[in-house]
Order: sequence, then structure tokens, then C-alpha cells
Amino acid sequence: MDSTLELFGLIAGAVTSIGFIPQLIRGYQTKKLEDVSYFMPIVLAIGMTMWFIYGFLLDAIAIMAANTFGAACCIILIIMKKKYS
Amino acid sequence: MDSTLELFGLIAGAVTSIGFIPQLIRGYQTKKLEDVSYFMPIVLAIGMTMWFIYGFLLDAIAIMAANTFGAACCIILIIMKKKYS
Repeated sequence: MDSTLELFGLIAGAVTSIGFIPQLIRGYQTKKLEDVSYFMPIVLAIGMTMWFIYGFLLDAIAIMAANTFGAACCIILIIMKKKYS
Repeated sequence: MDSTLELFGLIAGAVTSIGFIPQLIRGYQTKKLEDVSYFMPIVLAIGMTMWFIYGFLLDAIAIMAANTFGAACCIILIIMKKKYS
């Protein structure tokens, strides 16, 4: 695995991971996640777990790191929606 | 690129891509996306475009396909939120 490529992947992973943060902040501030579908974070968490395995088999740390963080954010989102509804 | 690994990645990509569909359907049905943060789909679309480039450089069709579809879903979500607000 080329290190420059892996660095680019790490940045890409960081950006997609950061993407869920504004949603979590908004949900925390408004205490409302009614318009957010339950299925979105559930399906994404399953898919991200599969991506993690893919990254593991490909020996790509960027894919593993991004999807671990992303899946964690999805699980937090599910818990928050459950709590606020 | 091993074909079994690529197939697994394609399935993982299909699952994460499908994840946005329930959110788009919910938004379309309720015409409400107030609780969905604008920044989530914007940042995710940027990140997914970067993942696409990563997949391109890695010659991984699964990564390219999943992130093209995912980015498209994010853009549709941004347009829908703009329209319904």
C-alpha cells in the first residue's frame, strides 16, 4: 500500500467521518431527530462494518479507521433518536 | 485486485449506498427535513468524492461505485432539504 495513497485515503476517511458530527450536534442541541430516518444509521452502520472488513482484508488502515468512526457515529445517532423520541 | 474481495467490497458499497434511500423516501413522504443538518450531506458529498478518487487510484471499482451513488444521494438530500424548507 503506497503511503501517499494511504494518506489521501486517511484524509478522505476523516472528511466522511466528520460528516456525521454536525448531525449529532444538531440533534443534541434541538433534542429533535424526528425527520431523521431510523433506517439510515442502521443500514449505514451495517455497511460500514462490512467496509471495515474490506479494509482489513485489503490492509488499508484508512478504510478501517474511517468506517470504525463512522459506524460509531451512526450508533450514537440511533441511541440519540431513540432517547429523544 | 482479488475478485472475491472486490465482490465483498461491492456488497459493502451497495449496503452503505442503500443507507441513504430510507432518508430520501422519508423526506419525500413527510416533506420535512428540518432535523437533518445541512452540513451532513455537504461534508459527506465532499468526502465521498475524495473516496472516489482514492478508489480510482487504488483501481477498486467497489469504492468508486459506492461513493458515486452515495455522493449522488447526498446531493439529492441537499436539494430536497432546500426545497422543503
